[in-house]
Amino acid sequence: MKFLSDDILLESDLAKELYNNFAKDLPIIDYHCHINPNWILEDKVFSDITELWLSGDHYKWRLMRNCGVDEKYITGDADSFEKFKAFCSCLPLCVGNPIYIWCHMELKTYFGYEGEINADTAKEIYDLTKKILNSPSFSARNIIKKSNVRLLCTTDDPADDLAAHKELAKQDLGFKVLPSFRPDKALNIELPDFCGYIKNLAKVSGIEIKTLDDLTKALENRLEYFAKNGCKVSDHGLTELVYEECSKKEAAAIFKKALKGSKVSDIQAKKFKTFMLLYFAKQYKKYDMAMQLHFNCLRNNNTTMFKKLGPDTGFDCINSSFEPNNLARLLNALASQDCLPKTIVYSLDPNDTRVINSIINCFQGDGIKGKVQSGAAWWFNDTKHGIYDHLSAVSEYSVLGNFIGMLTDSRSLTSYVRHDYFRRILCNFIARAVFAGEYPNNTDNLKKLIQNISYYNIKRYINIED
Amino acid sequence: MKFLSDDILLESDLAKELYNNFAKDLPIIDYHCHINPNWILEDKVFSDITELWLSGDHYKWRLMRNCGVDEKYITGDADSFEKFKAFCSCLPLCVGNPIYIWCHMELKTYFGYEGEINADTAKEIYDLTKKILNSPSFSARNIIKKSNVRLLCTTDDPADDLAAHKELAKQDLGFKVLPSFRPDKALNIELPDFCGYIKNLAKVSGIEIKTLDDLTKALENRLEYFAKNGCKVSDHGLTELVYEECSKKEAAAIFKKALKGSKVSDIQAKKFKTFMLLYFAKQYKKYDMAMQLHFNCLRNNNTTMFKKLGPDTGFDCINSSFEPNNLARLLNALASQDCLPKTIVYSLDPNDTRVINSIINCFQGDGIKGKVQSGAAWWFNDTKHGIYDHLSAVSEYSVLGNFIGMLTDSRSLTSYVRHDYFRRILCNFIARAVFAGEYPNNTDNLKKLIQNISYYNIKRYINIED
Amino acid sequence: MKFLSDDILLESDLAKELYNNFAKDLPIIDYHCHINPNWILEDKVFSDITELWLSGDHYKWRLMRNCGVDEKYITGDADSFEKFKAFCSCLPLCVGNPIYIWCHMELKTYFGYEGEINADTAKEIYDLTKKILNSPSFSARNIIKKSNVRLLCTTDDPADDLAAHKELAKQDLGFKVLPSFRPDKALNIELPDFCGYIKNLAKVSGIEIKTLDDLTKALENRLEYFAKNGCKVSDHGLTELVYEECSKKEAAAIFKKALKGSKVSDIQAKKFKTFMLLYFAKQYKKYDMAMQLHFNCLRNNNTTMFKKLGPDTGFDCINSSFEPNNLARLLNALASQDCLPKTIVYSLDPNDTRVINSIINCFQGDGIKGKVQSGAAWWFNDTKHGIYDHLSAVSEYSVLGNFIGMLTDSRSLTSYVRHDYFRRILCNFIARAVFAGEYPNNTDNLKKLIQNISYYNIKRYINIED
Repeated sequence: MKFLSDDILLESDLAKELYNNFAKDLPIIDYHCHINPNWILEDKVFSDITELWLSGDHYKWRLMRNCGVDEKYITGDADSFEKFKAFCSCLPLCVGNPIYIWCHMELKTYFGYEGEINADTAKEIYDLTKKILNSPSFSARNIIKKSNVRLLCTTDDPADDLAAHKELAKQDLGFKVLPSFRPDKALNIELPDFCGYIKNLAKVSGIEIKTLDDLTKALENRLEYFAKNGCKVSDHGLTELVYEECSKKEAAAIFKKALKGSKVSDIQAKKFKTFMLLYFAKQYKKYDMAMQLHFNCLRNNNTTMFKKLGPDTGFDCINSSFEPNNLARLLNALASQDCLPKTIVYSLDPNDTRVINSIINCFQGDGIKGKVQSGAAWWFNDTKHGIYDHLSAVSEYSVLGNFIGMLTDSRSLTSYVRHDYFRRILCNFIARAVFAGEYPNNTDNLKKLIQNISYYNIKRYINIED
Repeated sequence: MKFLSDDILLESDLAKELYNNFAKDLPIIDYHCHINPNWILEDKVFSDITELWLSGDHYKWRLMRNCGVDEKYITGDADSFEKFKAFCSCLPLCVGNPIYIWCHMELKTYFGYEGEINADTAKEIYDLTKKILNSPSFSARNIIKKSNVRLLCTTDDPADDLAAHKELAKQDLGFKVLPSFRPDKALNIELPDFCGYIKNLAKVSGIEIKTLDDLTKALENRLEYFAKNGCKVSDHGLTELVYEECSKKEAAAIFKKALKGSKVSDIQAKKFKTFMLLYFAKQYKKYDMAMQLHFNCLRNNNTTMFKKLGPDTGFDCINSSFEPNNLARLLNALASQDCLPKTIVYSLDPNDTRVINSIINCFQGDGIKGKVQSGAAWWFNDTKHGIYDHLSAVSEYSVLGNFIGMLTDSRSLTSYVRHDYFRRILCNFIARAVFAGEYPNNTDNLKKLIQNISYYNIKRYINIED
Repeated sequence: MKFLSDDILLESDLAKELYNNFAKDLPIIDYHCHINPNWILEDKVFSDITELWLSGDHYKWRLMRNCGVDEKYITGDADSFEKFKAFCSCLPLCVGNPIYIWCHMELKTYFGYEGEINADTAKEIYDLTKKILNSPSFSARNIIKKSNVRLLCTTDDPADDLAAHKELAKQDLGFKVLPSFRPDKALNIELPDFCGYIKNLAKVSGIEIKTLDDLTKALENRLEYFAKNGCKVSDHGLTELVYEECSKKEAAAIFKKALKGSKVSDIQAKKFKTFMLLYFAKQYKKYDMAMQLHFNCLRNNNTTMFKKLGPDTGFDCINSSFEPNNLARLLNALASQDCLPKTIVYSLDPNDTRVINSIINCFQGDGIKGKVQSGAAWWFNDTKHGIYDHLSAVSEYSVLGNFIGMLTDSRSLTSYVRHDYFRRILCNFIARAVFAGEYPNNTDNLKKLIQNISYYNIKRYINIED
């Protein structure tokens, strides 16, 4: 196949048909991303491809560091083109890395450039993309519209005032921007900034927080506020998925201790987190929000670089601490009280995928198709092999037809090619089953499967109206 | 390839030849299943496909629950056809799930139906299969004979009187039905029904049980009884494979404590289990029975549903607690005393397969080919990818030619298509090696490999006469 | 494809071109093996293929044991040809095992024999190879030269006098033999022979060892000696990768305790090991040696056989105890003090590969491409699927173009076909990406990628001059 062919990732005629007829033109619901809503509000225009691609994307920074590039050209003060050139010089080494193919797909899709990216072409690409990016037709909103996005869900702290979202809701954007509720800071009782965060939460909610009841009252206030502003999805980033039974009384005492500025023990932190996670889950059920659980990530492993650059700069890795029984007990505790919300489970360790798919099917219900989901191949695993492996696990250990599909989890506006990447792999995956005689070549069924996984399942799952 | 083609799963001409010439017509030795021997004794006739497929198969129930089907249509009191229709409605969503292909293979093999299963065809399938099932030529025994089964090993408690087996042994069935020895209840000292079980065991064995010596005497009595009734295989279902050294004196004290009705501690339970597992293993060696160890399963995770439906109803999942050192020490303890029986090791976590294959080859011996085995891809892992991955692991980390092959682990009589499924994958796996130039196209060798793995290895392994 | 075709493992014309034009004729740098340097010094001639293949290769012994072969024909006193015949009888059962294909590749490459290995051909092969092996043109040095080896790094204890290496350095071999520094015995403070080892070290270094400072002085003495003798690589074999913070004072006290002959506790052993590993790493950085960390191996699992045959006789297995945080903290401790050397990380558990690749990219630097590496698929994992899986992990989670490639980790001189095996898989892996349209068919780039991974990356990484 020609490099970067229109048929890339599609191995058979059937795969091409499925993709072109059913998947390609469907809109996108990006139910989990990290796009800055203010970029959309101010309709940001990018100064050049370095800003678009390299100002915050730590996936790319890691590749550059592996290639021995000096930090000056990564996060330092080097000239913008020099940074881009340094990145382009690394790419040819990255055969098989998703960044390699995504970058080329982005250039083709958004800028019409179909050549190779390398040191020799860096200048030509830089100049071409600069011209295009600087035109208002490539503002943030226009990129999103070009991407056929129908809805994107940002990631927001409970203490956020959602000012940008409120303003965006008033405008006719051609797409929707909704907040997601991510209360990590309210759970991380062991961190030094916990008390400061609680103060902030008190201020924003207007509720003085002296007890656990105050805390939950304040959080509920925020949750209600998020719900009013259209929030459909919550999100928890957990280093480790813990489950330690904890009574309300215990939780209240631990919270009190922390509020006084005392250090809580490891087991106390686990108990408090378990209590709060159960509390949040019940609220999500009440507000019909889906709960996302992301775990098995070790963050900020390189102390020197953390001190220089802060978090989310490319120094995180996969953890392997998942205990299936913790997830089973968490879901069981909620199911037993009939307050298990729609739940999407993601582990950063790809070894957990089959285990998770076996757990979720112990807790389905409420007449919701795929109520508890194994979330899409996440972060480091969002690769060709990673996506195939996830699809294989979901199809064999669960029901692929109910899968709510892809998200970007990205900070970048041109990352929407990842949906295209996913849909191609999905169509090819299903075409393989047909080709092998394991699924009938029944156009109606195939269409339904592909369109549901690409779009309609998530639309139904989070109740998005037409 | 046409849907459900006769050549399904066979990618090359060589694969087809290997399958058709060497594998297809071999009889089946199903050395581990959960078929009710009374069904065979009474030569059960099924009222309809709902009874055959949906009255006990929790694999199928889980798919239905994932699809949001109301429990009424799963385990509830809905009309028989309505239940079947509900199941058929779910199937098209299950692309890639083994249930999807097994169901179609069963309809084709046993009922001559080659169409798709879905809501539209549910009525036609229901009516067709009802007519066939209701005829005496589709009684339990006839289904087993049609399946070309030579021997099936059921799963039985030591306290079972084996009445059905004894009666079956007298009859000319055209196949054999032997019991397996599964003494889980004698190990699970931490469970509330332990003392009750011991009483039952005392009654059945006619040996009063007041001490550990009494217990082992009673168990040996049962083991001898099972051996007399043709038992070739034992089986242990272990949540976790533990190994905690424990003297006889300690074990006796722990047993005494439990018999008094006191709760034993976690570590005491582990010690007792280790002691008993070693005890049993020695007995199996003496009686030349193979020992099966199944572990890494978390059971009954959904308390609400457990209370409603009991165990084995679709609420189990994979656990990930395997510590290689425990298995190594267990096998070593036995090997050191020259009393390691033939052993088959199964973990429900597919991540363990390569580790297990590396462990077993530290403990081969006694001139037995593949004395310690990595058991077939089990339960959730009995999928196309799961079987390929297991074959890949066995071939690369051990010796595929000595593998004892497939079992059904099923409650259903038409599950014998799983052997066909396995044999096709096996033939295709080996054909791939030949096709790639990695194994010679030597018909004699290929025949031997395939026939041994499909049939003769297990026949030899458990000493079944012609 | 014909069995053992010249194109074996190469699925496409492009793969064949890449292999034949760029990979096939490159020399080999075997940066980690267990070849006995005295064999090279004395230019050993092998009496027959049994000595060459079966006198020490426990990979092969394990296969024979799995096949029920009596130990007499494995490590016992059976006749040399009978042993070889016993091995040949087993091989046809080993479809898919790397030993199967390696043996055939070795016969083809070194002896021109292209037939199958089995009981019937054993005599013919034995006679043919005996004639060839007995001629001086098949001495150890000549085999290495025929293998196109440029450099091989043996594995040596700090207490070794490197006499063979010094002598070899003076001669014009046509290739280089360098020592590697493997100080496992200086870390394993919990073992009974620790004190004896320390005495030996004192003797060799000429430094009396009474304190921790003495110990590090003695080790530095040896390290300097190794460096002077051309050592470029160190190696640590760790049952488990531990990380327990330990001050110098603590380490000194633990060392003193052990020197007195007292047993150190489990936690003390972990602390001491952590302290020493950090100490060594700093030294490697100073001497610009690469640090290899091998972990997750459980050794000598079969006590009876260990007593009979000692270590490295086929009774080791994979462990699964890797905690990502331990590796992250170890590397962070070193990076924080700016003394992280070039590091190559290997886990024997293939489930760890993706996790490790995510960790290493938190610690790149010093302008070195791939400074921290995920080492090649190791030991049990050095299989076709294992190599593909490792390449897939490195390419998707890291930068394949910076990978330093294959090593033999072998005791046998004809194991160099493993480099050929690896290079074929590498070329096929990269050709697949091109074939799928995911990497451009740019000859210059492809050549660079393949030649770098096959040879130039490791040459640069350990600073080998032309």
